[in-house]
Amino acid sequence: MDRIEKIISEVRDGKISTEDAAEMLRNESFADLGYAKVDLDRRRRRGVSEVIYGAGKTADQICGIVDSLIEHGQRSILITRLDEEKAEIVRAKIISGGETFLYDTTAAAGVVGTVKEPDGIGRIAVVTAGTSDIPVAEEAVFTAEFLGNEVVRIYDAGVAGIHRLLGNLDELMSAQVVIVIAGMEGALASVVGGLVSVPVIAVPTSVGYGASFEGLSALLSMLNSCASGVSVVNIDNGYGAAYQASQINHRY
Amino acid sequence: MDRIEKIISEVRDGKISTEDAAEMLRNESFADLGYAKVDLDRRRRRGVSEVIYGAGKTADQICGIVDSLIEHGQRSILITRLDEEKAEIVRAKIISGGETFLYDTTAAAGVVGTVKEPDGIGRIAVVTAGTSDIPVAEEAVFTAEFLGNEVVRIYDAGVAGIHRLLGNLDELMSAQVVIVIAGMEGALASVVGGLVSVPVIAVPTSVGYGASFEGLSALLSMLNSCASGVSVVNIDNGYGAAYQASQINHRY
Amino acid sequence: MDRIEKIISEVRDGKISTEDAAEMLRNESFADLGYAKVDLDRRRRRGVSEVIYGAGKTADQICGIVDSLIEHGQRSILITRLDEEKAEIVRAKIISGGETFLYDTTAAAGVVGTVKEPDGIGRIAVVTAGTSDIPVAEEAVFTAEFLGNEVVRIYDAGVAGIHRLLGNLDELMSAQVVIVIAGMEGALASVVGGLVSVPVIAVPTSVGYGASFEGLSALLSMLNSCASGVSVVNIDNGYGAAYQASQINHRY
Amino acid sequence: MDRIEKIISEVRDGKISTEDAAEMLRNESFADLGYAKVDLDRRRRRGVSEVIYGAGKTADQICGIVDSLIEHGQRSILITRLDEEKAEIVRAKIISGGETFLYDTTAAAGVVGTVKEPDGIGRIAVVTAGTSDIPVAEEAVFTAEFLGNEVVRIYDAGVAGIHRLLGNLDELMSAQVVIVIAGMEGALASVVGGLVSVPVIAVPTSVGYGASFEGLSALLSMLNSCASGVSVVNIDNGYGAAYQASQINHRY
Amino acid sequence: MDRIEKIISEVRDGKISTEDAAEMLRNESFADLGYAKVDLDRRRRRGVSEVIYGAGKTADQICGIVDSLIEHGQRSILITRLDEEKAEIVRAKIISGGETFLYDTTAAAGVVGTVKEPDGIGRIAVVTAGTSDIPVAEEAVFTAEFLGNEVVRIYDAGVAGIHRLLGNLDELMSAQVVIVIAGMEGALASVVGGLVSVPVIAVPTSVGYGASFEGLSALLSMLNSCASGVSVVNIDNGYGAAYQASQINHRY
Amino acid sequence: MDRIEKIISEVRDGKISTEDAAEMLRNESFADLGYAKVDLDRRRRRGVSEVIYGAGKTADQICGIVDSLIEHGQRSILITRLDEEKAEIVRAKIISGGETFLYDTTAAAGVVGTVKEPDGIGRIAVVTAGTSDIPVAEEAVFTAEFLGNEVVRIYDAGVAGIHRLLGNLDELMSAQVVIVIAGMEGALASVVGGLVSVPVIAVPTSVGYGASFEGLSALLSMLNSCASGVSVVNIDNGYGAAYQASQINHRY
Amino acid sequence: MDRIEKIISEVRDGKISTEDAAEMLRNESFADLGYAKVDLDRRRRRGVSEVIYGAGKTADQICGIVDSLIEHGQRSILITRLDEEKAEIVRAKIISGGETFLYDTTAAAGVVGTVKEPDGIGRIAVVTAGTSDIPVAEEAVFTAEFLGNEVVRIYDAGVAGIHRLLGNLDELMSAQVVIVIAGMEGALASVVGGLVSVPVIAVPTSVGYGASFEGLSALLSMLNSCASGVSVVNIDNGYGAAYQASQINHRY
Amino acid sequence: MDRIEKIISEVRDGKISTEDAAEMLRNESFADLGYAKVDLDRRRRRGVSEVIYGAGKTADQICGIVDSLIEHGQRSILITRLDEEKAEIVRAKIISGGETFLYDTTAAAGVVGTVKEPDGIGRIAVVTAGTSDIPVAEEAVFTAEFLGNEVVRIYDAGVAGIHRLLGNLDELMSAQVVIVIAGMEGALASVVGGLVSVPVIAVPTSVGYGASFEGLSALLSMLNSCASGVSVVNIDNGYGAAYQASQINHRY
Repeated sequence: MDRIEKIISEVRDGKISTEDAAEMLRNESFADLGYAKVDLDRRRRRGVSEVIYGAGKTADQICGIVDSLIEHGQRSILITRLDEEKAEIVRAKIISGGETFLYDTTAAAGVVGTVKEPDGIGRIAVVTAGTSDIPVAEEAVFTAEFLGNEVVRIYDAGVAGIHRLLGNLDELMSAQVVIVIAGMEGALASVVGGLVSVPVIAVPTSVGYGASFEGLSALLSMLNSCASGVSVVNIDNGYGAAYQASQINHRY
Repeated sequence: MDRIEKIISEVRDGKISTEDAAEMLRNESFADLGYAKVDLDRRRRRGVSEVIYGAGKTADQICGIVDSLIEHGQRSILITRLDEEKAEIVRAKIISGGETFLYDTTAAAGVVGTVKEPDGIGRIAVVTAGTSDIPVAEEAVFTAEFLGNEVVRIYDAGVAGIHRLLGNLDELMSAQVVIVIAGMEGALASVVGGLVSVPVIAVPTSVGYGASFEGLSALLSMLNSCASGVSVVNIDNGYGAAYQASQINHRY
Repeated sequence: MDRIEKIISEVRDGKISTEDAAEMLRNESFADLGYAKVDLDRRRRRGVSEVIYGAGKTADQICGIVDSLIEHGQRSILITRLDEEKAEIVRAKIISGGETFLYDTTAAAGVVGTVKEPDGIGRIAVVTAGTSDIPVAEEAVFTAEFLGNEVVRIYDAGVAGIHRLLGNLDELMSAQVVIVIAGMEGALASVVGGLVSVPVIAVPTSVGYGASFEGLSALLSMLNSCASGVSVVNIDNGYGAAYQASQINHRY
Repeated sequence: MDRIEKIISEVRDGKISTEDAAEMLRNESFADLGYAKVDLDRRRRRGVSEVIYGAGKTADQICGIVDSLIEHGQRSILITRLDEEKAEIVRAKIISGGETFLYDTTAAAGVVGTVKEPDGIGRIAVVTAGTSDIPVAEEAVFTAEFLGNEVVRIYDAGVAGIHRLLGNLDELMSAQVVIVIAGMEGALASVVGGLVSVPVIAVPTSVGYGASFEGLSALLSMLNSCASGVSVVNIDNGYGAAYQASQINHRY
Repeated sequence: MDRIEKIISEVRDGKISTEDAAEMLRNESFADLGYAKVDLDRRRRRGVSEVIYGAGKTADQICGIVDSLIEHGQRSILITRLDEEKAEIVRAKIISGGETFLYDTTAAAGVVGTVKEPDGIGRIAVVTAGTSDIPVAEEAVFTAEFLGNEVVRIYDAGVAGIHRLLGNLDELMSAQVVIVIAGMEGALASVVGGLVSVPVIAVPTSVGYGASFEGLSALLSMLNSCASGVSVVNIDNGYGAAYQASQINHRY
Repeated sequence: MDRIEKIISEVRDGKISTEDAAEMLRNESFADLGYAKVDLDRRRRRGVSEVIYGAGKTADQICGIVDSLIEHGQRSILITRLDEEKAEIVRAKIISGGETFLYDTTAAAGVVGTVKEPDGIGRIAVVTAGTSDIPVAEEAVFTAEFLGNEVVRIYDAGVAGIHRLLGNLDELMSAQVVIVIAGMEGALASVVGGLVSVPVIAVPTSVGYGASFEGLSALLSMLNSCASGVSVVNIDNGYGAAYQASQINHRY
Repeated sequence: MDRIEKIISEVRDGKISTEDAAEMLRNESFADLGYAKVDLDRRRRRGVSEVIYGAGKTADQICGIVDSLIEHGQRSILITRLDEEKAEIVRAKIISGGETFLYDTTAAAGVVGTVKEPDGIGRIAVVTAGTSDIPVAEEAVFTAEFLGNEVVRIYDAGVAGIHRLLGNLDELMSAQVVIVIAGMEGALASVVGGLVSVPVIAVPTSVGYGASFEGLSALLSMLNSCASGVSVVNIDNGYGAAYQASQINHRY
Repeated sequence: MDRIEKIISEVRDGKISTEDAAEMLRNESFADLGYAKVDLDRRRRRGVSEVIYGAGKTADQICGIVDSLIEHGQRSILITRLDEEKAEIVRAKIISGGETFLYDTTAAAGVVGTVKEPDGIGRIAVVTAGTSDIPVAEEAVFTAEFLGNEVVRIYDAGVAGIHRLLGNLDELMSAQVVIVIAGMEGALASVVGGLVSVPVIAVPTSVGYGASFEGLSALLSMLNSCASGVSVVNIDNGYGAAYQASQINHRY
């Protein structure tokens, strides 16, 4: 914890008092809005800026957090799980503040400010089993691009017609990491896991009915994958898969 | 895989290049619409044409897939899980394209083009435990008829009044395969399974309340059937039961 | 609560003090052995004597409770869920105390003292779906006979061969209450429920494998019975079914 | 099976042919409306008339079944799970046909024709844990009265204030059978089961939130009751509890 | 029901009395051993002889049932879920009675008498995902051969190395029906279902650990298969899959 | 039981009759409104006044209970789970009756009459993991203040940015009891439990999606906390946590 | 965090270097044994000494942790979930080291060193529903006494004979906190919660069978308690309940 | 698929026949032992050699697979889930064949041949919450080292004493990827996920009791992690986590 050592050093050197040191730590690391403690330290600690999870927050709360982040110098902010109605309110406020705002309906996500240029090692492949999985996939794509990754989409390549997947093997094989998104029985994760040599991050989706139990079937299927190199995130969590994929694609 | 061998032969004979061969395989087997990879090879591979699962697809996506299939020569297309609202949009588009479209509200399914004449070995019996199971049963009937089967309906023959079932034994016995559709405790599958000598495909339905847990009770019941010769498909999956029943009814 | 009123009356009449009254209530209704509070009031309150649930109790604890009950005048005591090993220890102690002890291995239950003559309105039918359900059925039979009921057994009459049940309709129809015992899919409860006009108490059993989930499948099936007049007790709870059946068979 | 023997007798005596006998059996026991096989034999077989489960049936289907039953001589018909909207349509049709129709909004149930006078052995007590359980209780009361039982209501007597239950012990004790209706933790069933000597039929309700899991908590609680003499029906199944309670209250 | 009509005819012709007719029906259709009602009518009704499910039955009970079946003329009897210890006892008894007995340790199944020659339409392919699934597969093979089917085994062809499956496509394609047996995530069923045009019967196995939940993961996966033509039987139910596969392979 | 002894004393002294004594007990302890038995004895027995759980009760029923409580002298009444629509009706009625009514939209709770001054030992800290957990937290705060506690809020201090929690350690450490409110994985309860030496009451919330299963994930997480001193209440049960926290904060 | 401020002060005063400060923090707060990081700071931070959870640790590992704690000055150490076999090994080692060791078979727990005198505010009541719940109760008693509490046992007071509980009301009412331990349906928690004004900590137990699902039924029941002031710990977690009860009983 | 193109090229050039080409593909990619199809193509396709999952395989089957792999040139083979008994048999056979065999009891894993030198980008940190999680951690360590990774162990650093984790921040921060292994509530994954900027792979363990439900609680907790960058593998799947961690640590 370099910062702690740095502050301790300043205390030792008599530059700041003990009480001030404690206060500094507290004040600089987050901004307390009452309903939210905005993490100002995240970029340093985690390598990426704050992301706002829009579900369960009011448009006002989202705008308040955005304001606080901008005020503290963050130039691009991702907002996920943002429905169209809230997006309209957020857009109006952001634009009136002189910032740009980009919203994607399918991904249900928006970006305040600029999206950075791709700077990853290679590409992230986003594969879906069906057409209905696309909204989750687009959340992943939107997130991955926000985090500086080049993405290749392979949609509707489920195992019921495995030649559709085999027909895209080259693109699949060329990726640094693969995100597999599937509902129903989620078998695609194992098949892709058996074909590629890079990490596979599997996202079960709530697509299906009956015994899919809102994604539980796909989730269990992916967790039990007989292929090595497959890990799993929460149901419909396109964001989470893209976040980790980006970490992997930015390793050096 | 005869086609692979055929293409390999042509390569050997110098008729086509290696690269072209790979491309051909890819291009001929499916049409990539971006949001869907339409399976053009299905009839050859699986014996029946492509079926469009309508849930989770927009009317536009459905129409795009239909167009692609028609373009590639498919003459009759089944669309399942198609609600009335989407069906209206689809119908308008299909008809404006000069094709016929038949929609069934109870089955929530439609057919583009013509339904073929029954050409199965015998009949498929579709039995329901109650009146509320009829929508699932009609999906099965619609599918079975689309696939060229003669169907006999035996509705509301649940075990609480077993004479209703026994009173239809002749019709039941005359079928080549029986589809049993029941919610609540799903006991009908075992009783029918104990009476007939042909395969029984059981469809649990989400009919019921409380501890039926949206069809889970019927599903478990059917999986644990003490009668031999009973297999099970997903909750409310009338389509799937009819598909396999048709396979059985077309064997030779 | 006649006893409370009686004690209050005696207080009013100056026969006993207020403090004594409170103490009396406490002392007379149960005997506290530390590890157990033996219910001495049960016969008056519930109409039958104390029953000892043997599982989770040591042989010593069981004997201690038996001693306490005998000391307070109870002449016949049922002990359920008593495995053979404990039964041997209990038998030795009981007999050395001059009491009789009858143990049934299949039922895993024993009786201290005498079993009373049948004094119910009619008979209780105990029906099982299979041979493997017999231990649960025998617990029910043992309990029912202990409580003064005549029992008729109809075993291995599951719905996979429904003529086995229909061939015993007369016996089934002649009962005042029917206990249906089944594992796997538990369909027998609904079929019997649809045939008879008397109450049916269903006992799911843990017989089965895989998706029977230790009796869960049969339990859910029975709870969702489409037949009216069916209620359910815990998995493998032959005792509980017989207890309630006896209550019904002794109403007047 | 007296009727079978009777028909066989007539065949033997040459009064009817073999083929006619089979046909008679089939035709007389139910009326086939296509979407429903109306059970005309139920009163003889089960002792009570047909009951229509309204959920999952259209108003038209309900009216069709009612018409068929009336046509075959049934004078009073219970319809459960009938929401207000359907009830209005049914009422209009029934009344236009010259029959009476009584509907109870809380119970969500209606009766075509007359309700018979109480003719049971004693009374049925219907006890609820809370105010929110009342709709399920009223379904039970409505059903019990339809089936000829006198009912006593003890509402909002949950165990959190056990004096409320103890304060109604006399009424509770005077019943021939007790229906206990509770959501949340369902503890009331065990407490009542420990106090009375008559059968207790427990109805778990979906009242509660969070870990009540739509009634699952109460259901499991009641199935595991440490009190003897408690059996359980499906979640929110006031009808089923009343049906069996009525069977018990009409035994002789 | 030809037999019923035949007996009725004899009654009409005065050849037998009404009471005798009822008795005959009862006596001829099953033999009541007390602990089991042996189904003597099964071959006529279901097309195959009685099968004994060995789990939960004592060796004595199994032998009793075998004796009863032999006595009534059945020449070959399948016993499933028969562990080695019981098998030894059964073998001794059977052989001492002059019959032959064939036991398979891996399948945990035995046959009394002769296995009939294959007489099906074609072959049944039995495919497993892994080596650990083989015991379930062998139960299926043993059953299928007992029922007169030629079987082809394709073991350890799971999707983690999909070329192992594709390398056996010819054998897979040549079957009349395919049984797919897989634990863990059960993805193999969907992949096979997408490749073949014949019915696929999927058997989830309890192979796996952790979130496989004793086969639940594979079960849900198979029920939600995105491939058409797949139905499912209980976890580890190799027998049930083979039974239905045999029905399909014997259709004409 | 002082009251019982007191009434018994009066009976003994001939001041009241036995019958009157029984009636008195009944009448004084609760008021029976038919749909509710209002607990008039609660303040004496439990130390706090009656609280009305608003969910599942009509506005009329709530007002009826309030009237009854006021009539019997209760001066401040808490109503929880009261949505805005019902709150409006209740407010109108309460105010027209001359009482004050305070409603909090976020907490979805209201108070009739006055809130008492804080009289606890110390403060209750209410900590949430995220912004979305605030409604549950506010229910806890509203309840705690109603019951006479000083509350300190620490919102949005989830473990993903643990410095936000560590930055508020002083406030956390100064509380007499801590309520931790978290959805998703509920990890905050264990972390706080490991930091403080006072009791922690954990409230899982239904915040999250997918495998949070409406709060089940957080619930299980909290129940399995590796930190000592953590107990758990129902999902979203801010009221229950505050109630017990207040008990702890008022001990002496 | 006074220690942190103290160390910072020493750094500021030049007494220790920055690097040493970081090292000190690390070295003093826990001893790293490789397989365990022994928490030396716990007494200061949490108010009580380290407790060793014996399950999943070898006897050698337990002894190693004990040695480390003794070495760092801890005088009394609680070891829970310690089976008899391991206890023997631990006892031998502890005694050979000159320390005392007290083991309780029923509680499956042991204490190294001395148990301190009761110094709580009042008493903790430990109530069980049945005899089978006693092992869990004794773990709670053992823990509570180790932590300096006076305990009163009320065993086998389940709701099936509620007079057994009412007969011990005085003892129950005199406690500062009540621990309720029950399996099966867990109803006792709600009943006790409705009777007392102090906090109730409920411990579900795995006592029961069938639908008790290893304690799940009791757990859900307790979480849904309709009584206020009830919180819940993990199934069979007598230790955890006693720990929090002790915290409550030591507040000032 | 370069090999396919290569073989096609040879066919085109007339070097091999079409039939031979198909056969070659089949023969070279796996060796069929009947009970197993040994994947000879895995190193090329997936980048690492075949791994044998020992559970559910006999020692003989394992040896057969090892022999086949050695015969086809694989020099180092990992065998996981290998209990000590089987390991002894395997060791004897391997050594008699002139190969070396290294077995680790805690990890329950063995290696045939040589383990390669670390050649990853950086280190993999393996963190456990408790001592009981160590066997799973050692499986991960053994696997990671087999795959050429340097590993740092941080054991027993659960959140109940968070200073134990914070005291190892430097080691944690220096890793290229972190594996977090925890049972019970699994909270450690979120806390670590919030502290580091590299990918976290979480492994839930079956450590715990009661509501941990054999690891389900930890699994759900980890899937719902509020920290970004956390993915999850199956319960107790140390191997799977290490495999993916190695993929990440070997990217370039």
